[in-house]
Amino acid sequence: MYSFFNNEFIPAEKNFIHVSDLATQRGYGIFDFFKVVNGKPLFIDDYLHRFYKSAEAMRLPVALSREELKKIIEELIQKNGVSEAGIKMILTGGYSPDGYEIARPNLIITQHALTMPGQAVLEKGIKVITHEYVRDIPHVKTINYVMGIWLQQKVKEQHAADVLYHMNGLVSEFPRCNLFIVKENDEIVTPANRVLWGITRKNILSLNGKPYVVREEDVRLEEVYAAKEAFLTSTTKRILPIVQVDDKVIGTGKPGPVSLAILSQLIELERAYADYRFIF
Amino acid sequence: MYSFFNNEFIPAEKNFIHVSDLATQRGYGIFDFFKVVNGKPLFIDDYLHRFYKSAEAMRLPVALSREELKKIIEELIQKNGVSEAGIKMILTGGYSPDGYEIARPNLIITQHALTMPGQAVLEKGIKVITHEYVRDIPHVKTINYVMGIWLQQKVKEQHAADVLYHMNGLVSEFPRCNLFIVKENDEIVTPANRVLWGITRKNILSLNGKPYVVREEDVRLEEVYAAKEAFLTSTTKRILPIVQVDDKVIGTGKPGPVSLAILSQLIELERAYADYRFIF
Repeated sequence: MYSFFNNEFIPAEKNFIHVSDLATQRGYGIFDFFKVVNGKPLFIDDYLHRFYKSAEAMRLPVALSREELKKIIEELIQKNGVSEAGIKMILTGGYSPDGYEIARPNLIITQHALTMPGQAVLEKGIKVITHEYVRDIPHVKTINYVMGIWLQQKVKEQHAADVLYHMNGLVSEFPRCNLFIVKENDEIVTPANRVLWGITRKNILSLNGKPYVVREEDVRLEEVYAAKEAFLTSTTKRILPIVQVDDKVIGTGKPGPVSLAILSQLIELERAYADYRFIF
Repeated sequence: MYSFFNNEFIPAEKNFIHVSDLATQRGYGIFDFFKVVNGKPLFIDDYLHRFYKSAEAMRLPVALSREELKKIIEELIQKNGVSEAGIKMILTGGYSPDGYEIARPNLIITQHALTMPGQAVLEKGIKVITHEYVRDIPHVKTINYVMGIWLQQKVKEQHAADVLYHMNGLVSEFPRCNLFIVKENDEIVTPANRVLWGITRKNILSLNGKPYVVREEDVRLEEVYAAKEAFLTSTTKRILPIVQVDDKVIGTGKPGPVSLAILSQLIELERAYADYRFIF
């Protein structure tokens, strides 16, 4: 399996970075992650847009243009000859002489096996717990997951699948996923603020009016507890129905019809993109 | 110059870590940093204590015992033959197969040139600005400095030397330094909560009653603005007098006698430790 570092393709197992990089020294960097389906990087322009936006927000110049980066991604996919995969791009703070000032960023691109949720979890749904926290600079996809990883022990102890952040009564997101709830009137809402603008989230928002109303607004924790349905979204997971939040059962305690309808529509969007759209 | 990685001494320029490490992937790790003076690691037991506490708090097992780690530090100092230096120990989340779960931590030890503040800055003092923020898990020395590094541009634009965090009216700390203020009655106080327990901070607290009262308590931002003197503390900087916070001049606008007296006492503590105490 090949990967990429700055300007060359190298075997993944030989992809090393010097310890003076600001990622190792100070956890400073940004990243993005997208799926390759049928040999095509899904919604690549959206992911690249976010990647460059994150880099800009964190004052990290990207040496390559979007077109150059796209070409490298295409070449990596071809070299590895895997039609279904995940690709991660990391841009670090670079080799900083004083271990604090941003230097010339290092670009790392790696390809990974994709593990999508199985049918069992879609039929059963998941339990999530909650934690009072807001990510630093939440609309930027930084590599800082200190809280999310630290909370994994609590997640496991409570036999949950993930942890939902909230602050001052408002929920925001999961460490790596967005939240949607279905209200009593079948309107679908997702927290508007203090969240990462997920691409799957964006795709679901694009389904507004087909036929469900889908929109962003502030969502209180009590509204989540009282929701008819709830689900989380991410690139790898697409949609996972949430049937329990803390000790509160959501709706009927089973994945609901609206969540599953949205999942079908999302898969349809992916299929249309991968099958019919010529990307490069 | 030698450095160390897991179980071997290697030239610093060859100290690389695989990109699958959780530090690069997720900014997950802890570290510590101490000074070597006269060939001796100053207050090493305090730093090692904090290092192991940070590791434990972040669920990162340290493969080496404190005695083993001390021996490696001693060997590194001898190999490099530098009597004055800074030594940094980083413990990362390890090579995580799924890029999220904590794996076997990687231990990195590197030696650095020390640059202490010059006489000019001690005579003139520094300006600092403020920013509303509290670090995640502030009492743990994680590698997460996303906010501190991101704020560097603002710090420079405002011709300041550092940025003081505050939240809900209470100040806490700088990204890499603690804060002390001198009150009208010459009492010296440092924020009690939401701070990293700095070793220099601890040493200054140990000076309580000799002759100044030194203690921890909640400190409001208004108290900083109104302080007779203020200073920041860190391992590398020891004490830097603060003469301006945002647009407010502190005291006379010059480094004050209490701050400089504490600095002298601190240097005396270091000298006593490095000259007379046999460490290993």
